[in-house]
Amino acid sequence: MDVKHLKLSRKQGVPIYLQLYRRYREAITSGKLRPGDRVPSVRSLASELGLARGTVEMAYQILVSEGYFMARGAAGTVVSPRLGTLPEPGDAKAPAPPAHASPHPPAMGIEAQPFQLGLPALDAFPRKTWARLAGRKLRTLGTAAMTYPDPAGYEPLRRAIATYLGISRGIACSHRQVFVTAGYRGALELVRRTLLQTGDQGWYEDPGYILARQFLERAGLRLEAVPVDEEGLNVRLGQQRAAHARFVVVTPTHQSPMGMALSLPRRLELLDWASRRRSWIVEDDYDSEFRYHGRPLPALKSLDRDGRVLYTGTFSKVLFPGLRLAYLVVPAPQVEKFEEMANHLPGPGSILPQAMVADFMEQGHFARHLRKMRTLYAARRGYLVDALIQTMGERLHVQPQAGGIHVLAHLNARQSDKALVAAATAKGLALHALSDWRLRKSPQGGLLMGFANFATAEEALAPVRRLKTALAQS
Amino acid sequence: MDVKHLKLSRKQGVPIYLQLYRRYREAITSGKLRPGDRVPSVRSLASELGLARGTVEMAYQILVSEGYFMARGAAGTVVSPRLGTLPEPGDAKAPAPPAHASPHPPAMGIEAQPFQLGLPALDAFPRKTWARLAGRKLRTLGTAAMTYPDPAGYEPLRRAIATYLGISRGIACSHRQVFVTAGYRGALELVRRTLLQTGDQGWYEDPGYILARQFLERAGLRLEAVPVDEEGLNVRLGQQRAAHARFVVVTPTHQSPMGMALSLPRRLELLDWASRRRSWIVEDDYDSEFRYHGRPLPALKSLDRDGRVLYTGTFSKVLFPGLRLAYLVVPAPQVEKFEEMANHLPGPGSILPQAMVADFMEQGHFARHLRKMRTLYAARRGYLVDALIQTMGERLHVQPQAGGIHVLAHLNARQSDKALVAAATAKGLALHALSDWRLRKSPQGGLLMGFANFATAEEALAPVRRLKTALAQS
Repeated sequence: MDVKHLKLSRKQGVPIYLQLYRRYREAITSGKLRPGDRVPSVRSLASELGLARGTVEMAYQILVSEGYFMARGAAGTVVSPRLGTLPEPGDAKAPAPPAHASPHPPAMGIEAQPFQLGLPALDAFPRKTWARLAGRKLRTLGTAAMTYPDPAGYEPLRRAIATYLGISRGIACSHRQVFVTAGYRGALELVRRTLLQTGDQGWYEDPGYILARQFLERAGLRLEAVPVDEEGLNVRLGQQRAAHARFVVVTPTHQSPMGMALSLPRRLELLDWASRRRSWIVEDDYDSEFRYHGRPLPALKSLDRDGRVLYTGTFSKVLFPGLRLAYLVVPAPQVEKFEEMANHLPGPGSILPQAMVADFMEQGHFARHLRKMRTLYAARRGYLVDALIQTMGERLHVQPQAGGIHVLAHLNARQSDKALVAAATAKGLALHALSDWRLRKSPQGGLLMGFANFATAEEALAPVRRLKTALAQS
Repeated sequence: MDVKHLKLSRKQGVPIYLQLYRRYREAITSGKLRPGDRVPSVRSLASELGLARGTVEMAYQILVSEGYFMARGAAGTVVSPRLGTLPEPGDAKAPAPPAHASPHPPAMGIEAQPFQLGLPALDAFPRKTWARLAGRKLRTLGTAAMTYPDPAGYEPLRRAIATYLGISRGIACSHRQVFVTAGYRGALELVRRTLLQTGDQGWYEDPGYILARQFLERAGLRLEAVPVDEEGLNVRLGQQRAAHARFVVVTPTHQSPMGMALSLPRRLELLDWASRRRSWIVEDDYDSEFRYHGRPLPALKSLDRDGRVLYTGTFSKVLFPGLRLAYLVVPAPQVEKFEEMANHLPGPGSILPQAMVADFMEQGHFARHLRKMRTLYAARRGYLVDALIQTMGERLHVQPQAGGIHVLAHLNARQSDKALVAAATAKGLALHALSDWRLRKSPQGGLLMGFANFATAEEALAPVRRLKTALAQS
């Protein structure tokens, strides 16, 4: 592709980096650029087009994050060869690129079970370091930390989260915008009580995270199912079905459970709708930390110019769920309203766990743990995928993914995923049926399976064999 | 008084121990029995009236708990001499006996301030023991405690609470009836979401705990002010004003903030109303552990035959508020409904603090700490009361109390307590105005002052002198 054909314009009112991104995306989708093709270096393209190097870099970074480009160090940047391994268009079993799935923690089980969703590798957690931090913290925490805690969260933790989000998710925020909450539900509850009314209508991804859906419905909100396609939430359909919705809950980095990223045009469309309607976007960024190819996309929140995005993240997957700690970043103009409401809610719990996480982050253990887990999960994902292919053959089709701690496998035959999961549950397996995560019916069944606790290939093989027996019986 | 005149009857449909209690109470109120008078021993009265010893013992225990009787060991039981030191009837400044006040934690301050309410003695907490427990716990907690926790609370803690309540509060319950919550608000939220609807009407004590009132009103419940008199909540007035109320929130052991106990006849009246109307009683038993004369009354919950009482207690005052741990005991038939709802709420937070409290209770540290604190608080209360009398003289009237970690002092002149508190707050003092705790206006002003962190007489004297300056200026 000749760069002369990029047709960029300063008059379009669209930032140059976005125009650049869109042109490349079209070129790949239309086949003008093919998997493996080399693209110009940032430096040469910038000089060729007379642009700032940062502008080109930004466009490239998004293309890499979304899986269209792949950086090969000294060998330059190419159109991702991964794109070639995906199913041909028209194959209904898997959505188009880029695809990477990972659902949320639905099972409330006390003991971990095979395939349990949302559970990180418990065996790999640095428990000794953690215990050492706790001992030191308990000796050094002053009596001030024994009084009624700030209901918005322990301040050193809020600062550590703000720093982390700035570096890793492109979110510029002050610690006062960060609220520590008792899990993702605590964050949803704080948003609901501060900004929403009983009976308010909101868009919900279909399929979408089942537990948050139940939580919101019980709290008296009305959810409008908005289908997810290969670019994530279909914003146009949302506007057709419920243009006046007061809010939307969306998983832009890794759609939960289908796994694709919300494309940049859709992101802009969504932000535009929310700004015009004065509606709220709840961004659930539940597992962006785990990605095995390319970089994660910057958060939707990083594009939020009009203060419509409520950003949520959790420590359940990067540390462990027993902590029950998550966080919410609110737009700066909303801080006082949220502080006022936080004073009237149960809040994020004891100071000690919050202080321990703050230390864990400040002392570099957090970044180290994440790096270690990325390598570990890539291997453990392999154990499960290999076991599925080896054991189930043509019966299942594993969806390609760039991240997450779960696998989505589509059923090949017209088999009911619910019946299969019922049979598997009876055998002590904790997997989920994709159908249960849907608001509207669809013939396409699938299985959601956690893999983070399969420490060896053998550990993955045994439950997959049990699953095969269940499949034969269901 | 001749025991022949006790006129007990097995045909009245009222348990004998209650009849006995009422007769003695009438005899004291009417002046037939006077402060210091000796009453028969349990054994001789039981034999005289042909009753089981346990029946008489129960009546005596309640009379002692309510402050009417005082046990003097070998010297036998007497009508409490304390009754004689109280103001004459008609003195509007202090309610009649028995009187013992202690309000709740209103200030959300990060650093402890002089007079801060609801804050226990932070300097006296056994921090070394606590740190040792944490270290051991972190080494021994299995990975099962790292997964998604039971939203009803950590089971060993639920068991420890059930045992404690059986022994100390007369509540017979299984651990499944116990729900661990994120503070008192977490308990209220669980009750509200499980049993109540937006717009439901409830009785609220006037004056009553200000923070819970704000919490309930924000959650969309309608509160009907029900006055408190010398016997606690006026149940008859409640029925006149809102017979169909769906719930009542009440502090039967220590009315918050006035300090009297809810009398036994009122307790029975309240239970009867709730049973007939199928309404709910939320019993807030926030500081029954601290009582310096006599034994605490058994919980209202211990009389709950029809399963109408939701009992709440907290670790904020017996351990420290930074824990953010409280608990709720629900009637056995409601357990499944509450478990189901708990699955859809943010829950009580991390497992670690819960596991530490469980160990602290099981290993006897909890009972030891309570014993130590009772002695300590009696002394520290003395420091504040002495400083008030010495410094303020006739300007304040300290209300006699049997327990709690706060003092209620009535203003003598027609001085506005709000103006005084505003002036004192400007001087860094954290006391509260009684008027702010009222739903309806009353000319009687008062000050609510925490004393638990005055470690010496001098530490109490300095802020009281500052208060005097504020009084002169307001």
